Amino acid sequence: MSRSLPGRAKAPSDEEVLRTLEGFAKRIAAQILKGRPPVMEIPVRTLANTIWDEKRKILVLGPRKARREFFDIGESKRFMQTLLMLSIIVRARREGDYPTIRDLYYTGKHTIYYVDEKGRRRSEETWNDQRESNSVIQDIEVATGLLREHMGIMHDAKGKIVGNVVVRSKGYEIDLSRMGSGAYAIPPNVDKLEIVKVDADYVLVIEKDAIFERLNEEEFWRKHNCILITGKGQPDRSTRRMVRRLWEEFDLPVYVLTDADSYGFYIYSVYRSGSISLSYESERLATPEARFLGVTVTDIDEYKIPRNYIIKATDRDIKRAQELMRYPWFRESKEWMRQLKLFVKRKEKVEIEALSGHGFKFLTQHYIPEKIKYRKWIV
Amino acid sequence: MSRSLPGRAKAPSDEEVLRTLEGFAKRIAAQILKGRPPVMEIPVRTLANTIWDEKRKILVLGPRKARREFFDIGESKRFMQTLLMLSIIVRARREGDYPTIRDLYYTGKHTIYYVDEKGRRRSEETWNDQRESNSVIQDIEVATGLLREHMGIMHDAKGKIVGNVVVRSKGYEIDLSRMGSGAYAIPPNVDKLEIVKVDADYVLVIEKDAIFERLNEEEFWRKHNCILITGKGQPDRSTRRMVRRLWEEFDLPVYVLTDADSYGFYIYSVYRSGSISLSYESERLATPEARFLGVTVTDIDEYKIPRNYIIKATDRDIKRAQELMRYPWFRESKEWMRQLKLFVKRKEKVEIEALSGHGFKFLTQHYIPEKIKYRKWIV
Repeated sequence: MSRSLPGRAKAPSDEEVLRTLEGFAKRIAAQILKGRPPVMEIPVRTLANTIWDEKRKILVLGPRKARREFFDIGESKRFMQTLLMLSIIVRARREGDYPTIRDLYYTGKHTIYYVDEKGRRRSEETWNDQRESNSVIQDIEVATGLLREHMGIMHDAKGKIVGNVVVRSKGYEIDLSRMGSGAYAIPPNVDKLEIVKVDADYVLVIEKDAIFERLNEEEFWRKHNCILITGKGQPDRSTRRMVRRLWEEFDLPVYVLTDADSYGFYIYSVYRSGSISLSYESERLATPEARFLGVTVTDIDEYKIPRNYIIKATDRDIKRAQELMRYPWFRESKEWMRQLKLFVKRKEKVEIEALSGHGFKFLTQHYIPEKIKYRKWIV
Repeated sequence: MSRSLPGRAKAPSDEEVLRTLEGFAKRIAAQILKGRPPVMEIPVRTLANTIWDEKRKILVLGPRKARREFFDIGESKRFMQTLLMLSIIVRARREGDYPTIRDLYYTGKHTIYYVDEKGRRRSEETWNDQRESNSVIQDIEVATGLLREHMGIMHDAKGKIVGNVVVRSKGYEIDLSRMGSGAYAIPPNVDKLEIVKVDADYVLVIEKDAIFERLNEEEFWRKHNCILITGKGQPDRSTRRMVRRLWEEFDLPVYVLTDADSYGFYIYSVYRSGSISLSYESERLATPEARFLGVTVTDIDEYKIPRNYIIKATDRDIKRAQELMRYPWFRESKEWMRQLKLFVKRKEKVEIEALSGHGFKFLTQHYIPEKIKYRKWIV
């Protein structure tokens, strides 16, 4: 299935990025030069326009587009914000700069003074906080089909990876099996990496960094011929993109290991299906065949987790689990619904580390390899 | 100065670590075998026993030690907790396991049932939360002089590094100038790294990951022959240890770049002088010659930061700044006291990214190199 996915995205070159951004601006300039009221069309990024694509098993943006008109008083500010941000990004691309989203916020932030229709002197900030400027960046992403990473925009990057993988970046071949006790910190723009060679049977995505460190120190990835990745909790775009590419380009099974709680289940859900706020990127970020390795609610009995290792779920945990039970990709899975119902009923959560009750080697010598061998994952 | 520091710590070998831990336990066993009431001596890790070492310019643990007696009812639980943790760590070392601090918590967690002096059946948990088990790990650290990293204990590792540095880890030589758009994720136990070669004029420590990513993408470190490190906000032990080692072993000047606010100033303070909670590790973690590059409060005027880039400091920011003004290492610096007083007076804070108001290249082509060239840092 993975080979035929239409979402297989090739990263655009720097020239293509600049051309696309300039083209977007030129279409608006052309309207103005022709004396027409300038309008731009932006796909709508609301929950109502987010669709569960049952066939592709990912969240995607629906077909709705909004017309943003300069001469509509309710939209002119947003119109101007969009052009302001676009001009800053184009300038950065032309000059080879790599601003952060915070840099973009500051660079565009200024006060506009004007006289209103009643002759009063007034002023307005271009934007008041970074949510506004970030939202405009997202508008430009959906309008142009470019990710902000393609536009050279920098942001925090949380992910780490080790294993029998060779990548090429800026001309260097980097062998991710030769990082020693350290790891390769995944760069913000994963699409600029070339994945040159992969020799691994599967990808193991680990929620928690400390467990990633432990498995790396013990060279789990070498003994089990796999690739280890952590996104340190809720993963960022770069980590998700890396997982997606390993699955898509190398057909590797992807297993996700999190705590047995609604937070962990949601992390799996984001890796697999995408998130509502970034549904326009699911095609590039989601891994619709990702498998949940554990820890499951039924593992509590199956692996005889001692009673005093069990943590009482909070009301928030339960509420979150009930939300998950309404997501279509959980609803269509009998096994997931069984797990979630049990979670809500038992109100018990368990961390990965609770498996250490059976000895430090239990996780790496029994739990993970046996779950994979006996196909005891959940989808 | 750096060369003569007594704190120059060589990492103990795995055998030395095991021998030290076993020795600690054997001394207690010997007391028991001789029929004496078992006692252990643990240096006291309280604020009252934390001393500002004016000569070495670091926070250190004072001379006070506590006697922990098994037959003292107020101390017997803590005594047992310490031995329990010690036995788990020794077992992990003997078997080559690398448990996380959370693993240690779970492994030691169990219920002890007993009959009290009035014949009632009672029970007690070995520990109730991870604070208790972590605290015992710290006791073992100060009692044995070993860091938990030396004991093979894993934890989250936040740091990243790039530059003309070659390290050796697990037999691999890793060239940190060949990481492309990514970076080398600093491992938990930095002392197991050998720093083979350094060709750089200075170390630039950056508070914010996104700015680290940007400077890395622009190859600032190559153009300015420096090493870039980020600890992503408040640095962890591993990042601090890495900075310390580059300063100590290679005599490199260390510059710290943070936002101009009390949070940023405190981050600098931790890199330079250590923290109260980890004062027993300052000798290995602090870099007493670290220099604060910026952003300073006076930079607001000097670099003509636009008024609408300035953020109003909260009461908490001001309170924090007033606390900093009581720290001896700030008190003894005229320039720092001037900056902090000004901060409290103006109640204004500024982020590094505010410098983008002068163009995206301003930070890298003017601000950082000129601050270094004209020695405009603060200590």
